[in-house]
Parts: sequence; C-alpha cells; structure tokens
Amino acid sequence: MTHPKFKSIKSIRGMFLLIFLAFAGILVFTHCNTAEKSEVKTVALTELQEKTLRFISPLPENAFTEGMNQSEEIIELGKMLFFEPRISKSGLISCNTCHNMATFGVDQLPVSVGHGWQKGPLNAPTVLNAALHDTQFWNGRAKDVEEQAGMPILDKLEMAATEEHVVEVLSSMPEYVERFKAAFPGEENPLVYRNVGNAIGAFERILLTVSPFDHYLRGDDGALTERQKDGLQMFLDAGCQACHRGAAMGGDMFAFFQTPKERETGVANKGRFDFTQRESDKYFFKVPSLLNIAKTYPYLHDGSVWSLKETINIVAKDMLNKEFTEEETALIADFLETLTGEIPEYALKIPILPPSEANTPRPRFDI
Amino acid sequence: MTHPKFKSIKSIRGMFLLIFLAFAGILVFTHCNTAEKSEVKTVALTELQEKTLRFISPLPENAFTEGMNQSEEIIELGKMLFFEPRISKSGLISCNTCHNMATFGVDQLPVSVGHGWQKGPLNAPTVLNAALHDTQFWNGRAKDVEEQAGMPILDKLEMAATEEHVVEVLSSMPEYVERFKAAFPGEENPLVYRNVGNAIGAFERILLTVSPFDHYLRGDDGALTERQKDGLQMFLDAGCQACHRGAAMGGDMFAFFQTPKERETGVANKGRFDFTQRESDKYFFKVPSLLNIAKTYPYLHDGSVWSLKETINIVAKDMLNKEFTEEETALIADFLETLTGEIPEYALKIPILPPSEANTPRPRFDI
Repeated sequence: MTHPKFKSIKSIRGMFLLIFLAFAGILVFTHCNTAEKSEVKTVALTELQEKTLRFISPLPENAFTEGMNQSEEIIELGKMLFFEPRISKSGLISCNTCHNMATFGVDQLPVSVGHGWQKGPLNAPTVLNAALHDTQFWNGRAKDVEEQAGMPILDKLEMAATEEHVVEVLSSMPEYVERFKAAFPGEENPLVYRNVGNAIGAFERILLTVSPFDHYLRGDDGALTERQKDGLQMFLDAGCQACHRGAAMGGDMFAFFQTPKERETGVANKGRFDFTQRESDKYFFKVPSLLNIAKTYPYLHDGSVWSLKETINIVAKDMLNKEFTEEETALIADFLETLTGEIPEYALKIPILPPSEANTPRPRFDI
Repeated sequence: MTHPKFKSIKSIRGMFLLIFLAFAGILVFTHCNTAEKSEVKTVALTELQEKTLRFISPLPENAFTEGMNQSEEIIELGKMLFFEPRISKSGLISCNTCHNMATFGVDQLPVSVGHGWQKGPLNAPTVLNAALHDTQFWNGRAKDVEEQAGMPILDKLEMAATEEHVVEVLSSMPEYVERFKAAFPGEENPLVYRNVGNAIGAFERILLTVSPFDHYLRGDDGALTERQKDGLQMFLDAGCQACHRGAAMGGDMFAFFQTPKERETGVANKGRFDFTQRESDKYFFKVPSLLNIAKTYPYLHDGSVWSLKETINIVAKDMLNKEFTEEETALIADFLETLTGEIPEYALKIPILPPSEANTPRPRFDI
C-alpha cells in the first residue's frame, strides 16, 4: 500500500465540541434533578461507556430541537423543496425519491436511478444525520448540506435541471415567493438558486436520529443488551473507531478503499481524486457514517454488498487486517443495530405543495 | 354524433344512499343540539343548496372515520404497501410515485413515467376519493379500489413486477408476514397477491377529502363566497351535473370523449372499448371526479390540457354545446376551487418500512 490510509480534514470540529458541551449540560441537569426524580437514571458511567466516549459522542437527547436553530419558515420551506418534484427537469424526481424518508433516507438501491432511467456510479448516502459530517458526498466535494443540496438537482444523471429552471418553477408559484421572503427576511431577492440549497440544508439539519446507543452513551447502561455491549467491546478492540468516530461515527475523514467488486472488475471509482485532481487522493472516499447503518443497505460506495455482516468482514480485513469469527461478526452486527434511531415525526409528515400556475414550466422527459 | 353520449352503470348506488343517510343523520344530530349550542349553524337549506343536493351529495363531516370501517391493521398495512417501492421490479417505484400525497394523489404529469422511463397512454387519476367511484381506471376495467390497486404493480409500463415477485419480496420480511396475519386474521395463507390489493384498497378508502363545498351542502351557507355560489349556479344552469354527479361528482358513468389533441393528431385512446371490446364502447371514458380538480392537473384522459379554464370550455362545448364568456368560465373555475378538500393527516404521515432481508429479491432495472 503506497497511500497513507487516512486523512483528517479538521483537527477540531466545532460541531463535535458543541455536542460534547450539550452532553455535559445534560449531565449537570440530570444530576441536579436526581434528588427530586427517582426515575432519573444514574449518570455514573461504566468503564465501557467511558472508553467509548473517548472516540464517539452521542447525539443530545433533544437533538431534534437542537437541530432547529434556524427559523421555522426556512425549515418548512426546506421540507417542501425536499419533497418537490417540479424542481427536476421531468417534474417526477424529488430529493425524497433517492433519499426516501420511508426507508431511512436512502433508496436501498446499489446506485440511484435518475432522469431518463440513468444510473450514477455511487451509492446514495442517507440524509439522516448528514449535517454532522465534515463534508458532503463520497468525495467531499461539498462543504455542507446547504452546498450539497443544490448539486443533485443540476446533475444530468439525477434531477437534470438547471438553476434557471428551478428559479423559474418556484417563482411562478405565489406561495413559494412568499415562503422564500419569510425564510430569508433580510434579502432583497430571496428566491435565488443558492437559497434553495440553504433551505433544504436547514431541513436536513433537523434530521437527527436519536438511537439506543445515544441513550447508552448518555448514561443509560440498560439501553444496550449484554450481547450488544459485547459487540461494542469487539468494535473497539478491533479499532473500528479509528475511522468511525465522532457524532456521526464517520464522515470526518477520507480513507483509501476499493470494493471487492471494483478489484474484481478492475473498474474503480476514483473517489476524492475526481474533486481535487490530486494523485494522492485517488481511491480515497469519505468514511461513511454508521448511524442507521442496519437500514441503509446496500453497502460500500458502489452499493455492491447487501449484507451487513459481509460488509463488516470486508472492511475489517481491508482496513484493520482483522478476521472475525462468525460469532464475532454477529456480535458487531448486533451492536450496529443499536445505532438505528428515531426519525423526527416532523420529517415524516408530507408537506402539501402549492399548485402549478399557467407560467410554471412544464415537465420535460428528453435526456 | 352516432353514439349515445352517456351510459349509466348502476341505477342506484349503495354508497350514494349511505352518504345521504349519514347526511340525514347529521342534520338530525345538529338539529337536536341547536338548543344547547348557539354556535351550531342553521340547517335551513337555501334554494341553491336544495337544488344542488338533487344531484350532488356531500361527504359526511366525519368522512375519515366513516372510511375507517376496516381494521387499523389492514389500513396501516395498506398504507405501508402504498409507499413500498420494493413491490416494483426496480425497487424504486411505489404507488405514491404516481399518486403523490404531496400533490393531491397525482403526479401532475400528462402521463405517468414508469419502469425504464416508459410512459403510459393515459393521465393518472387521483387516489383521493377514488373509492367513491363506481369503477376504477378511465375504462372501468377494475370494479373497485381493491382490484385496481393490484394492476399497476404488474403493468410492464408501470411497476413491472409479477405476482410472484411481490409475494416473494413481502414474504421475506418477518414484519410483513406478521402484519398480513394481523390484517387478514381469518385466512390460513394471508400473504397472497390478492391481499396486497385488498390492503391498499382499505387504505385508499380512507382517502376522503372534505371540502368547503361539502360544508356548504351540509347547510353552512357561508362556506362559499357569493361569487363561488354564482359559479355553482352557472355550473348547474349549464348542466354539468348531468355527468358530474353524486358524491364524487363523477366516476359513475361513461361518456364519449375525444380530446382536442386526439382529434388533431388522429391518434385517439379507445377508452372502455379496450376493456369490453364492444364497438359501442369505443372512445367512451369514465367521467372523471371533480373533487380536488383544481389540484389534479393536467386535465382530460390524456393529460393534454394544463389550464382548468381551458378544460371547462372544452368540455362545456363538447358535452353540452355551451360557450361560456370569459367571466362565466372564471366563475365556474372559482366554484371548482371549493372542491379542494383536506387530505387526512394520517395519510400524510410516511410509514417506516421494514428492512430487506438476505432473501429479499434484489432490484432489477432491465425492461
């Protein structure tokens, strides 16, 4: 292996720090209330909890509220745009087509299908908790969810629209004009393409899914079974947290990786190289988040593996040179199931979209 | 014109009667409570209300509850299946793809786009209030929503699955196996293809949207503006209620119709003939429901007209030999806006779908 395996993007992450502070605040709050409320769980941490917290930070208990640090107007507009098919060229494809809320923010396909039944080269990651990543896309070409959200809309393989089309569509509907004004009150011309991404990003920032593992890390030792804790111990002993760390258990560094399918076929995605054009970035991909991993199959950047256990074995062998017994793999899989969180109710409620007007551009199906 | 224009399917409709009985019940109930509740509106009907009620029946106020006359288990299962893309061959297309709840149960496209980006010949009608129609599809080839629901899943242009595929997919997931058992408790082998349609149909039966016009017909004269009432008067004077009658304001008869586009191009859908093979059914289409008509564009059976006003003029000229002034057309359009109803909250809440298992059939994209 001639490449260094890992590249950290930032040494200290503001988000990371904030979440730790929130966590500390909750601990203090919980402690202060112990005397009155007998049902409050003890915050004395076990050795395993403490060890884990050196690498992984839990989502705050009130993650949904914390994520709502922008106005209701921008978040609701963002949700509407997330479900809005008319911002695609065909009028058929919305963000939710590939990032389906019914299936944990993914399409459960190896690679997504877009305009004209065209397929892209990479597996669509979940939008759930995506705001916790340091960068967006497998190659990190967008710095945040706001920048990311604007890109698939314009991709010829995905929604195949143009900035002009999107602005024309939205400007044709009085309700959207009003909603952009309310969402971006300080701006003279709020209905611009950049703000489409800004609004969708604001919505995505609330897509935080609190899981049993979060409860466990916040002091509830009973949130995991003994078997799941054994799986966590195995996960840490193997060293998975070297990459799958932080609040998203991933998303904050790039690593050299080729899938078995890519090795077999000799046709490999080039990862971060496609963005930076640096030879040293060739075949480097963003470490995926493990949150909701049991629900966001198929796995690896080309979606070539359907089984979670098979994925565990592939990654462990390739990244850590570990070979697990069948039971060890099963234990880790059982632990990973505890990362499945609750999707906020608000995100599951379909918004009613305003009707098209006479001057709303019509759908086009040509490729 | 050599064809008789209209064919009634049934002379008396059970649904029609039931809704009138429910309406009568509400009247009695409201009357009995008038003494105590000063805010209850008078039920003395105006002449226009009475005239309208000879042709059109309102949805009951508690339409959502009335629709829920099957078990919660079958309705919830039906909702999951409605949002389930894995019952399509590609794993990408669900009922909600073309009958999008965010856009009043339609895709707002001239004709729908299905498997392999293929297009069908006809505009997808809304699923909202579809259970009130006497038959399903533009050609009436399905007798009810239960029978209808099973057909697009198998259509090569739409979801392109087979019965075997659907049963194999659903049987592979323990949660679905349990849910079919709970939804069809008397059946030895509940997870069969027929019950997929039965469950989706049960869900569709609750998709009743109560509108300002329903409130008006139930005695609230203030639910419509004077202008909207003038539009209603114009609608009745023109004779639109000859076809657009009953609880769905349509859906209970077939009429000869060719769209301007079909006449111009000389390429016309054959309508009910495709189903019955009777020469006398050639170019006969089910009269579409007018409920939520302002939101379910584009119009006519080939989705060839985007404007509601243009549609009003086309149909009035063609079916009733009427030519409206611009103001008359606008009045009728204003009245038709009052048929936009409320989608039940329950239907807008996206269900979380169970995860695929190792033996769940994988998506296939070939045509």
